[in-house]
Amino acid sequence: MEKPFRYEVTHTCAQSGARLGKLYTPHGVIETPIYMPVGTQAAVKAMTSRDMEDIGTQILLANTYHLHLRPGEALVKKAGGLHKFMCWNKPILTDSGGFQVFSLAKLRKIEEEGVRFQSHIDGSRLSLTPESVMQIEQDLGADIAMAFDVCSPYPCDYDTAKAAMERTHRWAERCKAAHTREDQALFGIVQGAFYKDLRRESAKALSDMDFIGYGIGGLSVGEPKEIMYEMLEEIEPIMPKEKPRYLMGVGTPDCLVEGVLRGVDMFDCVLATRVARNGTCFTRKGRLVVKNAKYAEDFSPLDDDCDCYCCRNFSRAYLRHLFKAGEITAGVLASIHNLRFLIKLMEDIRSAIAEDRFLDFRKAFYAEYDMSNNFGNGN
Amino acid sequence: MEKPFRYEVTHTCAQSGARLGKLYTPHGVIETPIYMPVGTQAAVKAMTSRDMEDIGTQILLANTYHLHLRPGEALVKKAGGLHKFMCWNKPILTDSGGFQVFSLAKLRKIEEEGVRFQSHIDGSRLSLTPESVMQIEQDLGADIAMAFDVCSPYPCDYDTAKAAMERTHRWAERCKAAHTREDQALFGIVQGAFYKDLRRESAKALSDMDFIGYGIGGLSVGEPKEIMYEMLEEIEPIMPKEKPRYLMGVGTPDCLVEGVLRGVDMFDCVLATRVARNGTCFTRKGRLVVKNAKYAEDFSPLDDDCDCYCCRNFSRAYLRHLFKAGEITAGVLASIHNLRFLIKLMEDIRSAIAEDRFLDFRKAFYAEYDMSNNFGNGN
Repeated sequence: MEKPFRYEVTHTCAQSGARLGKLYTPHGVIETPIYMPVGTQAAVKAMTSRDMEDIGTQILLANTYHLHLRPGEALVKKAGGLHKFMCWNKPILTDSGGFQVFSLAKLRKIEEEGVRFQSHIDGSRLSLTPESVMQIEQDLGADIAMAFDVCSPYPCDYDTAKAAMERTHRWAERCKAAHTREDQALFGIVQGAFYKDLRRESAKALSDMDFIGYGIGGLSVGEPKEIMYEMLEEIEPIMPKEKPRYLMGVGTPDCLVEGVLRGVDMFDCVLATRVARNGTCFTRKGRLVVKNAKYAEDFSPLDDDCDCYCCRNFSRAYLRHLFKAGEITAGVLASIHNLRFLIKLMEDIRSAIAEDRFLDFRKAFYAEYDMSNNFGNGN
Repeated sequence: MEKPFRYEVTHTCAQSGARLGKLYTPHGVIETPIYMPVGTQAAVKAMTSRDMEDIGTQILLANTYHLHLRPGEALVKKAGGLHKFMCWNKPILTDSGGFQVFSLAKLRKIEEEGVRFQSHIDGSRLSLTPESVMQIEQDLGADIAMAFDVCSPYPCDYDTAKAAMERTHRWAERCKAAHTREDQALFGIVQGAFYKDLRRESAKALSDMDFIGYGIGGLSVGEPKEIMYEMLEEIEPIMPKEKPRYLMGVGTPDCLVEGVLRGVDMFDCVLATRVARNGTCFTRKGRLVVKNAKYAEDFSPLDDDCDCYCCRNFSRAYLRHLFKAGEITAGVLASIHNLRFLIKLMEDIRSAIAEDRFLDFRKAFYAEYDMSNNFGNGN
């Protein structure tokens, strides 16, 4: 019988070394490199499943931490799993909640057994362990589950970073031991903060554990982009060539281009939808804040090159009016645009790799893109 | 040359006397009786134009008062009119703002010349007259423009109601004199509060002015539904048979059924979308508050009979989760359902009229619909 999961590198760009791949899952094949929209609470904010299909989404994220708290994995399981619950028949990936509990700061305590924390919803005292997270993710039933890991802040002293990494490795072993669903792929997560030797050590240790794929965690937490890129370059030669690599929480247009150049296959980020609801839009030329007065009588689309429903039909002037008037539709349309922008960018990147011209593509990208009007790393 | 507007009664139900009709406009033919979704600020709240097409919308409303204040009719005109601005190529009707300025209560003063009021947005002092409203509506460029009228509250003493009605008639004449666009139909508005003789007098006076169609205004402002129905019965014999009749601001399921029985051809109401965003949904059995705990594990759709995108794909349990989690998508899905519910109800009503069985339909409607779990008139 064929394995439910398989990843193959289908082409390596002769010009850049960037790679094209296919990740086979029980809910379909994912063409990589790819940007994955985020539906934290089992819905991409302001979007419906058909909106997501319309923009060419191949896989959605959902979050274990949020869904455990509300509505609870028992309900999702009873509904027949996440795919049925949220009406999404393509692949789904669940983050493990490691980053979310880390973000709770003073509301959480990380120990060897797991993390004790207070719910951000009602303050109730809860805990997550590698074993309980595996149970939750298996109940949710996504195609890909992430291991439960320990993040480090930026900056972070060496000993703290090392301890977090080592615990992440022990937790990865525990996750592997606890994970039994064969129709769900478990991905390990590389940590090591901003120390090259730790990143190398983590990449090696995780590789030896032979996961189906690998997250690269703990980046885009406030460090300069150059440092993130250095970490990616450090681990690239160590990461197994035949496994997918997922750079977690990274999703600005330039970071996608740079990540792909450094061998990354998968990205996710809430930035696209978060800034969209505030009227900030991606364009080939950089950030566009559509609420600005200069767009009041601008009847052109957000981005001339974009093929999304919003750009095909609505003007900057109309969008600006909707935002000024507080209409929910404003956030809907801007979210459609921002998500489609990133998905289309990755489609264009895949074409460039297939045609061995990704360095040319990258050069053309920066010739248009105003880096002085850009986003942060955007976690 | 054929006139840009034409209304014909295509069938009268042998069982009930209710009528089917066709209203021809420059942007297409409207089959009546019809419920018209409301896009107050040039967008139906939480909806996109394609959502509206998908649910079978034949005509949209927009509001002169709101659009005058923001973004201003000059911008809409510059964009090429409301159809282009909001990307809606089917008919549009603009309300005149008469009801909106009336609703400003202490912030407005109604005089013979017009209404002076303070903007609900920034408190600036503005005025509207029959002539300025005609100019605004012509700049907006909807297919149907409503005359500027004077509403009365409920309850209202006879002399006040009479004075408001008489002023409405004088303003209707001024609107007619000021209105020149031949590709836009001007509808007069019948007033007269809750006095049968005034309603009859108003219906007669407006009929004599020979408008293309007629609004029935000042109802659903807090009075018992029976009183509203009495007013409709009173004016029905007086209203010209060959003109469309539009009961303004009325849109609960039972009121649609009762309005059609009393000769109404067009309805609008913001209730469907307003309550949807709060998780209150229309069903054949009455109101359903999907946030209620009893739906936590209910994997059935909002309404078994409904063919909308939401009911075809999502469960009450999922919708409840989205509402509890504060997801915008919750309001989007519930709005799709509530709007489609009313549009489908009117489609079913039209079929029943066509087949001379509208009284049977009405009986079956009430057999299912729990009137003790209903909405108010819902303006």
